[in-house]
Amino acid sequence: MFEAKVASAVILKKIIDSIRDLVSDVNLDITSEGIGLQAMDSSHVALVSLTLHQKGFSEYNLEKPVTIGISVSNLAKVMKLASNDDEITLGLAEEPSHLKVVFMNKKQEKRTQFDLNLLTLDSEHLGIPDTNYTSEIMMNSFEFSKLIKELNTLCDTVTIETTIEYVRFSLESDVGIGNIQIQTSEPAEKKEDAADDPKEDTPVIQSFALKYLNMFNKASCLSNSVKLMMAAETPLVVEFEIEDIGELKYYLAPKINNDAPQ
Amino acid sequence: MFEAKVASAVILKKIIDSIRDLVSDVNLDITSEGIGLQAMDSSHVALVSLTLHQKGFSEYNLEKPVTIGISVSNLAKVMKLASNDDEITLGLAEEPSHLKVVFMNKKQEKRTQFDLNLLTLDSEHLGIPDTNYTSEIMMNSFEFSKLIKELNTLCDTVTIETTIEYVRFSLESDVGIGNIQIQTSEPAEKKEDAADDPKEDTPVIQSFALKYLNMFNKASCLSNSVKLMMAAETPLVVEFEIEDIGELKYYLAPKINNDAPQ
Amino acid sequence: MFEAKVASAVILKKIIDSIRDLVSDVNLDITSEGIGLQAMDSSHVALVSLTLHQKGFSEYNLEKPVTIGISVSNLAKVMKLASNDDEITLGLAEEPSHLKVVFMNKKQEKRTQFDLNLLTLDSEHLGIPDTNYTSEIMMNSFEFSKLIKELNTLCDTVTIETTIEYVRFSLESDVGIGNIQIQTSEPAEKKEDAADDPKEDTPVIQSFALKYLNMFNKASCLSNSVKLMMAAETPLVVEFEIEDIGELKYYLAPKINNDAPQ
Repeated sequence: MFEAKVASAVILKKIIDSIRDLVSDVNLDITSEGIGLQAMDSSHVALVSLTLHQKGFSEYNLEKPVTIGISVSNLAKVMKLASNDDEITLGLAEEPSHLKVVFMNKKQEKRTQFDLNLLTLDSEHLGIPDTNYTSEIMMNSFEFSKLIKELNTLCDTVTIETTIEYVRFSLESDVGIGNIQIQTSEPAEKKEDAADDPKEDTPVIQSFALKYLNMFNKASCLSNSVKLMMAAETPLVVEFEIEDIGELKYYLAPKINNDAPQ
Repeated sequence: MFEAKVASAVILKKIIDSIRDLVSDVNLDITSEGIGLQAMDSSHVALVSLTLHQKGFSEYNLEKPVTIGISVSNLAKVMKLASNDDEITLGLAEEPSHLKVVFMNKKQEKRTQFDLNLLTLDSEHLGIPDTNYTSEIMMNSFEFSKLIKELNTLCDTVTIETTIEYVRFSLESDVGIGNIQIQTSEPAEKKEDAADDPKEDTPVIQSFALKYLNMFNKASCLSNSVKLMMAAETPLVVEFEIEDIGELKYYLAPKINNDAPQ
Repeated sequence: MFEAKVASAVILKKIIDSIRDLVSDVNLDITSEGIGLQAMDSSHVALVSLTLHQKGFSEYNLEKPVTIGISVSNLAKVMKLASNDDEITLGLAEEPSHLKVVFMNKKQEKRTQFDLNLLTLDSEHLGIPDTNYTSEIMMNSFEFSKLIKELNTLCDTVTIETTIEYVRFSLESDVGIGNIQIQTSEPAEKKEDAADDPKEDTPVIQSFALKYLNMFNKASCLSNSVKLMMAAETPLVVEFEIEDIGELKYYLAPKINNDAPQ
């Protein structure tokens, strides 16, 4: 048996909209620590990792850990029945055949219940290795989203290069060649520390498919900032903190080097 | 000969947009009481009934009653030539071949005239019987519109159940099963009377095609509230009052019972 | 060698969006007086003429006049990388193979550079003859844009008739016939002069393809007013002044007379 409440539907609606274009049927892992989801897109190039911490729920009661399979696009349709400030209750019976989703509006006069059919899915054990990322960049999420969207109209691949002073996005296509260079604005004291910090001393340069980065953009409504984490020969991590409840990370494998612009 | 004026184009524009998806060629019945329209959709499942009262027009001169056939979608295109606060004059000559539509803007410096060709249509005598509706529900029209739109993404059929305390919309599909229950908020004195009023004592439960209900939604811009009227084995009435001038009613035949969720 | 700066990207973005639907590959003529562009649409019915005066640029350095070929749609995609208030620098090397476009944001921390590949195009010498237009009408550009858009849903051709007192747009289709008549509001002193001015004494009536007029509408965001200039058996000129920097003119050949409504 499981029951959990979220005070306001809007965050869950945005989270589900952020992943529905990338993954279709997924397993949710419900444990005493919270709800987790890890799934690869159908081409196995990108990975979505969502963590919702137990402490982010207003109520959270779980007897024993359980994994349930759901259709993300069906859940997204159900979530649209909620008004943004409805309270949401999620529930599972013993041996559940469905996820019970209840929305109650503020005035307590409108109650929506939907029993979403569960799916039986192979569980993928994805095992994301702990990585020592040599480069971490914070950007305004709206600016990142707009940048990726416009680059995607110009070409297929972007090369991201980070140094201690800037991050540079480069592209090359039959339209021409170009780059966008953004100074990284660290607080002064962090800059002094940087000499001791191997993370910020190692420039990284890697190329990625813009199509996937553009799909990650849906999550820019979840947070004002986005963190890009890179290391050589390692997938890029695009991370959005979700206030008070958890985080949504996208992993994207780099393109092999001979695709990159010079 | 006929001539009638409406002080502001915006209402007529909205009315015509509200019916253009449902009916194409229709007869307008112009009498000393006003302008009326009754038409079935092409599949003969839904019926539109529009009444514009003579007293809602700023001028209204008619020699003798007349029925004219028009193309709703062509009239909608002509209406788009009007600015929202233009004054509209409708006119018919003796033995008319066209409906003369004139828009004059407030500053009296822009005058648009369009002579819309008339059509010769078989006149359907639809004969809507007077029905004693056992259930009448008022809802916020925006909320009703949003609800129907979202349900329509989840399944084809909704079952509507009304009791003295609530109205409940239920659905069942391969996504799962669900319902939305809304308390009916009657003023206290009306509730006391209710015991004497057979209307509010008889629960009704019937199923309807969401596709049509969703087409009625266009009219939600005409009024802040919508009235649902039901009785057993009788078409649902979805009624929008149009301030100062009339009302727009949609009738929708129920689905046969074995389609309904349990 | 050429380098020119514009203080704010938004005007250039709007200009390029205003012509991209009409012309694809064009020559830019860069002289000491400014940047000019003249190009016909692929069906050779409409002509675009853009003039950006040298004094409208915050910097403008040119060694010797040069003509370069560019893809308008590719330039439009590149311009989307700019924020509206970015400063733009355009640059050409000696014997250039590309147009260097640099955007710098206000805070000077984001720099975008794109080297747009140049095209080798046949240069068309279009030679627009000096015409004594017998009719000049100023209209609100938004109102003109809305009018043309709505007429375009009703038919293919509009007949424009100008007199000293009004401009009238007429149409005829199987939907019906109609016209929009707008009084021309000249300042009083101009009206007195009019008796001496042959321009305003000669009514003009000509028919035009709405499809093209509708493509000119994109430019209505460049200026609050639009000037229509007509003379018998001469292309219509639809002119938008672009504040502080230049003007954009569209020329449209009239339809032959037997297409016009009576």
